[in-house]
Amino acid sequence: MKKIALFPGSFDPFTKGHENVIQKASKIFDEIIIGVGENSTKNSLFSLDSRVRHIESIYATTPDIYVVSYSKKLTVELCTELGAPFIIRGLRDVKDFEYERSIAQMNHSLERHIETVFLVTDPEFNHINSTIVREISKNGGVIADFVTNSEILVK
Amino acid sequence: MKKIALFPGSFDPFTKGHENVIQKASKIFDEIIIGVGENSTKNSLFSLDSRVRHIESIYATTPDIYVVSYSKKLTVELCTELGAPFIIRGLRDVKDFEYERSIAQMNHSLERHIETVFLVTDPEFNHINSTIVREISKNGGVIADFVTNSEILVK
Amino acid sequence: MKKIALFPGSFDPFTKGHENVIQKASKIFDEIIIGVGENSTKNSLFSLDSRVRHIESIYATTPDIYVVSYSKKLTVELCTELGAPFIIRGLRDVKDFEYERSIAQMNHSLERHIETVFLVTDPEFNHINSTIVREISKNGGVIADFVTNSEILVK
Amino acid sequence: MKKIALFPGSFDPFTKGHENVIQKASKIFDEIIIGVGENSTKNSLFSLDSRVRHIESIYATTPDIYVVSYSKKLTVELCTELGAPFIIRGLRDVKDFEYERSIAQMNHSLERHIETVFLVTDPEFNHINSTIVREISKNGGVIADFVTNSEILVK
Amino acid sequence: MKKIALFPGSFDPFTKGHENVIQKASKIFDEIIIGVGENSTKNSLFSLDSRVRHIESIYATTPDIYVVSYSKKLTVELCTELGAPFIIRGLRDVKDFEYERSIAQMNHSLERHIETVFLVTDPEFNHINSTIVREISKNGGVIADFVTNSEILVK
Amino acid sequence: MKKIALFPGSFDPFTKGHENVIQKASKIFDEIIIGVGENSTKNSLFSLDSRVRHIESIYATTPDIYVVSYSKKLTVELCTELGAPFIIRGLRDVKDFEYERSIAQMNHSLERHIETVFLVTDPEFNHINSTIVREISKNGGVIADFVTNSEILVK
Repeated sequence: MKKIALFPGSFDPFTKGHENVIQKASKIFDEIIIGVGENSTKNSLFSLDSRVRHIESIYATTPDIYVVSYSKKLTVELCTELGAPFIIRGLRDVKDFEYERSIAQMNHSLERHIETVFLVTDPEFNHINSTIVREISKNGGVIADFVTNSEILVK
Repeated sequence: MKKIALFPGSFDPFTKGHENVIQKASKIFDEIIIGVGENSTKNSLFSLDSRVRHIESIYATTPDIYVVSYSKKLTVELCTELGAPFIIRGLRDVKDFEYERSIAQMNHSLERHIETVFLVTDPEFNHINSTIVREISKNGGVIADFVTNSEILVK
Repeated sequence: MKKIALFPGSFDPFTKGHENVIQKASKIFDEIIIGVGENSTKNSLFSLDSRVRHIESIYATTPDIYVVSYSKKLTVELCTELGAPFIIRGLRDVKDFEYERSIAQMNHSLERHIETVFLVTDPEFNHINSTIVREISKNGGVIADFVTNSEILVK
Repeated sequence: MKKIALFPGSFDPFTKGHENVIQKASKIFDEIIIGVGENSTKNSLFSLDSRVRHIESIYATTPDIYVVSYSKKLTVELCTELGAPFIIRGLRDVKDFEYERSIAQMNHSLERHIETVFLVTDPEFNHINSTIVREISKNGGVIADFVTNSEILVK
Repeated sequence: MKKIALFPGSFDPFTKGHENVIQKASKIFDEIIIGVGENSTKNSLFSLDSRVRHIESIYATTPDIYVVSYSKKLTVELCTELGAPFIIRGLRDVKDFEYERSIAQMNHSLERHIETVFLVTDPEFNHINSTIVREISKNGGVIADFVTNSEILVK
Repeated sequence: MKKIALFPGSFDPFTKGHENVIQKASKIFDEIIIGVGENSTKNSLFSLDSRVRHIESIYATTPDIYVVSYSKKLTVELCTELGAPFIIRGLRDVKDFEYERSIAQMNHSLERHIETVFLVTDPEFNHINSTIVREISKNGGVIADFVTNSEILVK
């Protein structure tokens, strides 16, 4: 049976850190679906459509990696619809870890068959943080060092 | 002299984790007042009135546990008005701990006679987090596993 | 019914931070027993006997605060023997918090009627750490700023 | 190709928390090898032989889960010998997370093809900590609530 | 060559904790420029103009400490304009530390010659937190214990 | 006046992470003295003499960087003897940060004129941890990726 995993996130924007997570996850799973979510409480800097196209540009020629967008839906529901019993999350720092642990445990409460797998990036990507990338972009800085194909992103 | 403690929070919503804190605190204090605050910087998902009625429904028949709401008032002022020299706070994770420590220390600077007591929930409630409960509720998920009498809450 | 609490620790040595915890706890509980433990895995710098006499010297004239020593016994057993259903612990930093949370939860698993209450010191005592006090003492430094009656302690 | 993962640890002792990690990992990997290590810097409470037999007793009838012991060998070397390109680690708290992240990143530096996968236990196992289990055992407490088949373990 | 450092922040408001950082930094650097930033994502409680005048009032007679305001500009750009290759940041707690580490590392990626220096306040200022000071001020509390010349600040 | 700083540590062994800290510190200070300490509670893997010669080999031709060893002496005493009012410490993770903050604050209590300056390494060195390097070395692994001139170190 094919092992399918969902990598959900707002990806505002998708960074080289996220790419590094996908690269590691693709050794473990047979198929990976990147789920780009509309965040209900925060405005995103880049439009949902632009974020999806940006990620598609990175994986255009990579087999077994797909991109979907979703909104007003639980992550565990999306997993069920997609037949993906695994959720992938990258861990960068302690703050991430605690929040992700709670979400993983609550998702498991909602759907007992869904498990979350955590990966840490290689050290050279550890400091890349979408929040700070957005701040740099808003203040006119160049983000190409942190984001592949950054020219595709539209604010 | 009766030992009276205030358990302040936004309780948006009041979860089984909060219930577990109250259960432990009621062994220590003679009377507990649950203070439901209007958060000045964030919009709440459930109305203040609905949050108060929800908590009242849980403790309707429990003696020595009361519910009040407050806004535009310091927590230490509310303590003084209520004759409650103790503040109860639940600690779930590291992020909580650091913020709560600063608030406890600043409250003690403002009113030297007020002390804060911290409790940790039993492990099975450790992951229950109001922020994630709200996300589940907003996305149409069922929150009854995490919140007693959740049908009373009105968005 | 009198509310009795145990404050267990190795107190190697008992610092002004611990004193600050006792001062806060004495507002909440009717009687406090300071339990000085023999640590099974680490050698202490100050002898168990010296640590007990040091703490007794600090509370010689304070009613309702007692000192006992214990070894080869679970903390929850000591609580049961002493009729103390509450455990007091001071929280200084994140590392403390996580370890203390696990111990509190495991103690509660072992004896369901025992609850742990956490207190944070006032800011001016937050940095006082027995491990560092020991290092200073071992290297010939003066520890009187951090430890009351430090001249009583014998290595 | 079969996906084989190593779950290394000192397992002094193997707890219900570790069991929970194995249960989750067995959904992801085709074969899991539990590697019981001799810790070079700390004395273990239970003998290496006893720890191995204890874990074997738990998985005696479970297919695709094996137990090996190792000493004076890098974890990445053991992976290579066993043909296991994945390392499984459980994350319980923040302290774990930071140390595990460094080890995972250093292991990846040593052998670029080896990836570490992190799992978090379900909330009811989150507080179970081998260090505290050892303390309980040393002080004569009963550890059966935290360790399956604990009667097999020999100090 | 004169060593010039920038101390950037939103300083909403500038607290006694920030003063303590400046006092320490002034022993290390020859000249310090306090850069008051307009935060692009959060509304400030005190106006930018009021925040600048408040800090100027504190350092009116101190040589080698200057105040500037900036907006829509990267911190590293401001450093370059001012000829300040050092950034000073205060560290209060773990949450600060992780975010500050990422920002320092990303700033160093953007401009390799810029280094960030971290200082921790003395213990008696460790709990002073601008976010909590703002909450106190919004709810009508007195902030003079935490902020020098607080009467100058205008909401 | 020349600004002299002490970089104290056990350096068991001195890694590329430490080198990165020195490189940054040398932009701030005029002279740096690396103080190699004998740890009173832990056995070191590499001899004190070997650790000193190893570090000297790295900075043999670098002006204004010196190496000393010390034992049974407080760090602040060494600072006073050397005329170095600044202490440099590298911060890698949260656990480091909390311990280092306490030590910095206690050192400042002991000698009010001594200040500690914290630096974070560049991301590619963030995971290099002497404890893990020692584990690798003890188990026969090659540490040349993490330690310059590692062939000079003698166990």
